[in-house]
Amino acid sequence: MGKLIDGKELSSKIKEEIKNEVKGFMIKPCLAVIQIGDDEASNVYVGAKEKACNEVGIYFKHLKYDVNVLEKEIINKIIELNNDEYVNGILLQLPIPSNLNEQRIINHITSGKDVDGLNDINVGRLNNNKEGMIPCTAAGIIRLLEEYEVPMEGKNVVIVGRSKLVGKPLISLFLKKDATVTVCHSKTENLSDITKTADILVVATGSKWLIGKNDIKEDAVVIDVGVSRVDGKIYGDVNTDEVKKVASLITPSVGGVGPMTVAMLLSNVIKSYHKMNKTTN
Amino acid sequence: MGKLIDGKELSSKIKEEIKNEVKGFMIKPCLAVIQIGDDEASNVYVGAKEKACNEVGIYFKHLKYDVNVLEKEIINKIIELNNDEYVNGILLQLPIPSNLNEQRIINHITSGKDVDGLNDINVGRLNNNKEGMIPCTAAGIIRLLEEYEVPMEGKNVVIVGRSKLVGKPLISLFLKKDATVTVCHSKTENLSDITKTADILVVATGSKWLIGKNDIKEDAVVIDVGVSRVDGKIYGDVNTDEVKKVASLITPSVGGVGPMTVAMLLSNVIKSYHKMNKTTN
Repeated sequence: MGKLIDGKELSSKIKEEIKNEVKGFMIKPCLAVIQIGDDEASNVYVGAKEKACNEVGIYFKHLKYDVNVLEKEIINKIIELNNDEYVNGILLQLPIPSNLNEQRIINHITSGKDVDGLNDINVGRLNNNKEGMIPCTAAGIIRLLEEYEVPMEGKNVVIVGRSKLVGKPLISLFLKKDATVTVCHSKTENLSDITKTADILVVATGSKWLIGKNDIKEDAVVIDVGVSRVDGKIYGDVNTDEVKKVASLITPSVGGVGPMTVAMLLSNVIKSYHKMNKTTN
Repeated sequence: MGKLIDGKELSSKIKEEIKNEVKGFMIKPCLAVIQIGDDEASNVYVGAKEKACNEVGIYFKHLKYDVNVLEKEIINKIIELNNDEYVNGILLQLPIPSNLNEQRIINHITSGKDVDGLNDINVGRLNNNKEGMIPCTAAGIIRLLEEYEVPMEGKNVVIVGRSKLVGKPLISLFLKKDATVTVCHSKTENLSDITKTADILVVATGSKWLIGKNDIKEDAVVIDVGVSRVDGKIYGDVNTDEVKKVASLITPSVGGVGPMTVAMLLSNVIKSYHKMNKTTN
């Protein structure tokens, strides 16, 4: 029977460390979140970020725009925030209305404040193995594996999903750990044959219970990132109850990767704060 | 018996097209190559680039520096070339002396003229599936596979080697083609088990005959990028004579990927020329 990976506990530990560190700062670190429209899920996610910031003493600046806002207005605000010496992190809450050019907007966020790690420069730096901002969910997954002392060097890692938030950055992060990395997605033929070769399997697709007990190797480490809502109930990409009988370590659908994403976001804000204030961390 | 992939022929075709196109330009496109030191292999590679430029009518500006040149001097020259409206491509010939910061120098090349596709922004753009400059060898491999009508969607692609010139950019390029991509390297355990799953195998390590006939699946497509010199003789990463009996398509060690790299470089210079002169291509 596999052991559960407790993302909530590690996330609390990280938040506690940040909280203690921030107590010693004269000026509060500040995260600015730009939200466009009134998407219900986005409201929940933004709310969770605000709550976490409040917990640790990071000032939360919520900039909420009407769904019809012009791209130019958002970009002007970003330029203003880039130049604001009291703002350490700028985040564009996704998704945004499809008439706006998401990547073009994100590329206006200066690299040091791009706490989601999504602008071209940060993506390039990660790919080039240079220091930069790393997308929070991907960073959180690596941090969890480190915490649980999961060996990565030479191991077969299979990632299902190739999003810029999770799958793509994980390729670079796992290669840096000297793992052998395979990326699968909706067009992959015989997915199960491939997932069964994984020592570490990361699933980030948003398809309810895509992975069952017949899709994994005995004693694999299984990280479930996906969230999908079916008939008002929330499901992961992994059928945890079934898979945990075969896996050695597995994240629960709730309290696994999710809390780590927020912890890594706070951690990126602090990283920027130190850089901007030339303190050490 | 596998068919040989003729990179020389396709490269000649591309160069012929460029030559015809350049004939219609009033001002010649220009490629500036910065070489530091007098490395023998670099002299050969720079010479090949010069020859190719001359063949198609691209003006070749060779800037050769002493091995003791200061980084600042190189960067100042790059800034000058960035601002020069007659220079369309800037390339830093690698390797450079280890006391100089390679990536920092490359990041000074403006993205549009970064014809090697190595600066952080171009790397990020490729990763984010946005238009930009693509590293020449990687682009050349995809072009060869397209020319030979090799299906990529849903196929298992195995890349051996994770360099920024070949392996890393190929991950993004093959994912864009909807292939399932596995990246192996020196730390990969049981390499042969993995290469045997490949429908398309790309080997870019510089280890003589790393791949033999027992390492591939029947009818695989095999792309050999590596070059190594043992006792004055040049070898590929693939034991071609042996592997071609099992593969369906295979590049020869000479006249396979090599000529494509140069053709893609010329093609990137022309791409920049069009962009700078707002002509269409």
